Amino acid sequence: MANRELSRGVTIIGGAMSHFGSYPDKSGRDLMAEAYTDAVGTVDKGIDTNDIEALYIGNFAGELFERQGHMGHIMADWLGLVPRPSTRIEGACASSGLAFREAVIAIASGVYDVVLAAGVEKMTNVPVEKVQDYLAAASDVPYELDLAAFTFPGLYAAMTTAYMSKYGASTEHLMQVAIKNHDNGALNPKAQFNSTIKSLMEHRVERAIEKGSPKPGWRDEYDFLRDEKSNPIVADPLRLMDCSPVTDGASCVILAAEEVAKEYTDSMVNVVGTSQASAGPFTTWGSDITSIPSARLAARDAYAMAGVTAKDIDFAEVHDCFTFAEIMAVEDLGFFEPGTAAFASSDGETSSVSDRPINISGGLKSKGHPVGATGIAQIQEVWTQLRGRAERRQISHKDLRLGLAHNVGGTGGTCVVHILERQ
Amino acid sequence: MANRELSRGVTIIGGAMSHFGSYPDKSGRDLMAEAYTDAVGTVDKGIDTNDIEALYIGNFAGELFERQGHMGHIMADWLGLVPRPSTRIEGACASSGLAFREAVIAIASGVYDVVLAAGVEKMTNVPVEKVQDYLAAASDVPYELDLAAFTFPGLYAAMTTAYMSKYGASTEHLMQVAIKNHDNGALNPKAQFNSTIKSLMEHRVERAIEKGSPKPGWRDEYDFLRDEKSNPIVADPLRLMDCSPVTDGASCVILAAEEVAKEYTDSMVNVVGTSQASAGPFTTWGSDITSIPSARLAARDAYAMAGVTAKDIDFAEVHDCFTFAEIMAVEDLGFFEPGTAAFASSDGETSSVSDRPINISGGLKSKGHPVGATGIAQIQEVWTQLRGRAERRQISHKDLRLGLAHNVGGTGGTCVVHILERQ
Repeated sequence: MANRELSRGVTIIGGAMSHFGSYPDKSGRDLMAEAYTDAVGTVDKGIDTNDIEALYIGNFAGELFERQGHMGHIMADWLGLVPRPSTRIEGACASSGLAFREAVIAIASGVYDVVLAAGVEKMTNVPVEKVQDYLAAASDVPYELDLAAFTFPGLYAAMTTAYMSKYGASTEHLMQVAIKNHDNGALNPKAQFNSTIKSLMEHRVERAIEKGSPKPGWRDEYDFLRDEKSNPIVADPLRLMDCSPVTDGASCVILAAEEVAKEYTDSMVNVVGTSQASAGPFTTWGSDITSIPSARLAARDAYAMAGVTAKDIDFAEVHDCFTFAEIMAVEDLGFFEPGTAAFASSDGETSSVSDRPINISGGLKSKGHPVGATGIAQIQEVWTQLRGRAERRQISHKDLRLGLAHNVGGTGGTCVVHILERQ
Repeated sequence: MANRELSRGVTIIGGAMSHFGSYPDKSGRDLMAEAYTDAVGTVDKGIDTNDIEALYIGNFAGELFERQGHMGHIMADWLGLVPRPSTRIEGACASSGLAFREAVIAIASGVYDVVLAAGVEKMTNVPVEKVQDYLAAASDVPYELDLAAFTFPGLYAAMTTAYMSKYGASTEHLMQVAIKNHDNGALNPKAQFNSTIKSLMEHRVERAIEKGSPKPGWRDEYDFLRDEKSNPIVADPLRLMDCSPVTDGASCVILAAEEVAKEYTDSMVNVVGTSQASAGPFTTWGSDITSIPSARLAARDAYAMAGVTAKDIDFAEVHDCFTFAEIMAVEDLGFFEPGTAAFASSDGETSSVSDRPINISGGLKSKGHPVGATGIAQIQEVWTQLRGRAERRQISHKDLRLGLAHNVGGTGGTCVVHILERQ
């Protein structure tokens, strides 16, 4: 499958996310305005917003959550960017990863020089059983939903069970992904749950934690995660704390052709790899459902485009919609051999002080998962880390050159991978 | 606003639409399979479908009509094109016009050489009052719908009233757009209503009509269109026969980089102009709502990219979601001066035998309007006409070199214009 080199370089010149959380009084457009304003503020040398030539808006299901489709022109209008072309891109939970990719492609094509790529989802104003219904639209409805009666947690639970059975991993291995990501998110002021998992469960306000402090291995203080009352099963073996939350949020990045980017920034971070692949429902994958084929392909092609290998990646934001999804992700990306990541991550090999920190932002689990905003929230985190501007959660024990973002739609129906490089 | 030349040429090598109509037993994916199979069959020298490297799927509201989002991977799977990247694009009724544009941009960028662009909507399996609700998601919901209580016919009715008041046009001028488009559609075997408006209203089976036969001016035989019983008012002054229908349908085109297109066809039709613009709700347009600002801009930029003017366009497919929308369209495109098109079209200046036939396919009015499929249905018609393959409806009284497609989302929140040229 073709994934040739881009015909010209693309640089990120600005990026931010809104606060992620539950905001009953804010609409999707309010959240977008917050992310956009902050993103414009991150452009080193400033930007006249008239320079922005087009918008790509990632959104999964505004029609369902807010009764609002046609989100492209809505956001162009709300951000004062009419009459610029504005296109809404949808790929379930990978919507804004795809929106970012279309922005990169459009700049490479020569049609635009400066483009806004953004993502948004407003989810918390509908009852939680509706949220479940709406998210199901990302599956293959007549087969996975109507025929097989799967929910999304159910689909991932089946994959988790297959992995545990094949490789001997346990639920504690999963729980330690959640513990790590909450430890990371405790240092992210915009995260929905910016607290350790213990503070979160005990409703404690204190959020103080030193980066990388949890020592590898299971500790008694996490026994509450094994308890059915405090951590109920959602879809066996996945419990509440294995699931990312329902979230309101938005995210924005501003991209420019490399040759004009220097007008806006001296700190060049380029998109050196972009790749996307699709898959059918997992019943079509053959015998193995412990790995997502579209993720493996997208990773392979993104590495090839960037001329690097998995070993070269310094850190990554991966799609941990469930704890097990992170374990699969780091294997599909080639960071770990199949069947080893559950054990390796429990041993601290993905922690904030490891050789290759995973989800330093807190990931979907702690930062929150406003579906259509997630892909670009990951990318703006990678960009921020590569510029050394991530404040308390900045990865500082190693030099950062290459960061990766891995964004999945559904159970892998869509996967999109981006690699950014500090120049 | 930038709309530079594409960095490489893009050629259409195949295209088709499914039958448009009401198909209770067919899903969106069934319709897509029909359009895709037919499109593959139109490639002159044949195509190994493995050559297709990516898909762009236009769809407005599958989440609402079919409970199915994430339509990119669904269609890739259904058409046997997994694991190719497949992206769903949404811009209300302009969804597949935008999908086509993204396909053009992606080929120009060098990332792909051969791309499938498609559109689909499955609308008729829900009650008609639901259809109204769902279509409203294309408006600016909190303002146009919740606050101002506009329906879509209501919004267009307000624009129609403003035009009639400003320029002295009458409802008969509108009705003659419908008469013409049904006369055209009577020659299109895939049209939802492939019959003259008189046959349609009288439920007659006969569809025989000679191209261009209706003489200019009002004729007594159309008096039934003035009758409240046979042609009830939907939103004054728009009556039932001023409105495009609710439709199931799909459309596909296959695009290739110009340098590889010769492997597939000897009959080169290139995309020489592509342009897109956005607008806010019409309350933000200033004093004049008789013209759509995004359409004027998109037309201007598409002509500039193609290096042509309105005068050079030989024929066009325009977005006649309502009869008045066609009148506005041909003015916004510069074919007629503001305030003159209602009269000129009643005088036959847009008929199938005129200097510049408009909606030779039957338009949305007669061919049908499966929202997300409409933009590419227009483009495949322009392509088919430029190749001289439109059978009974082929424009034959003039040489065709340049054809235009004009696709509008909402009341102009999005407009996208494409110009195709036979080489």
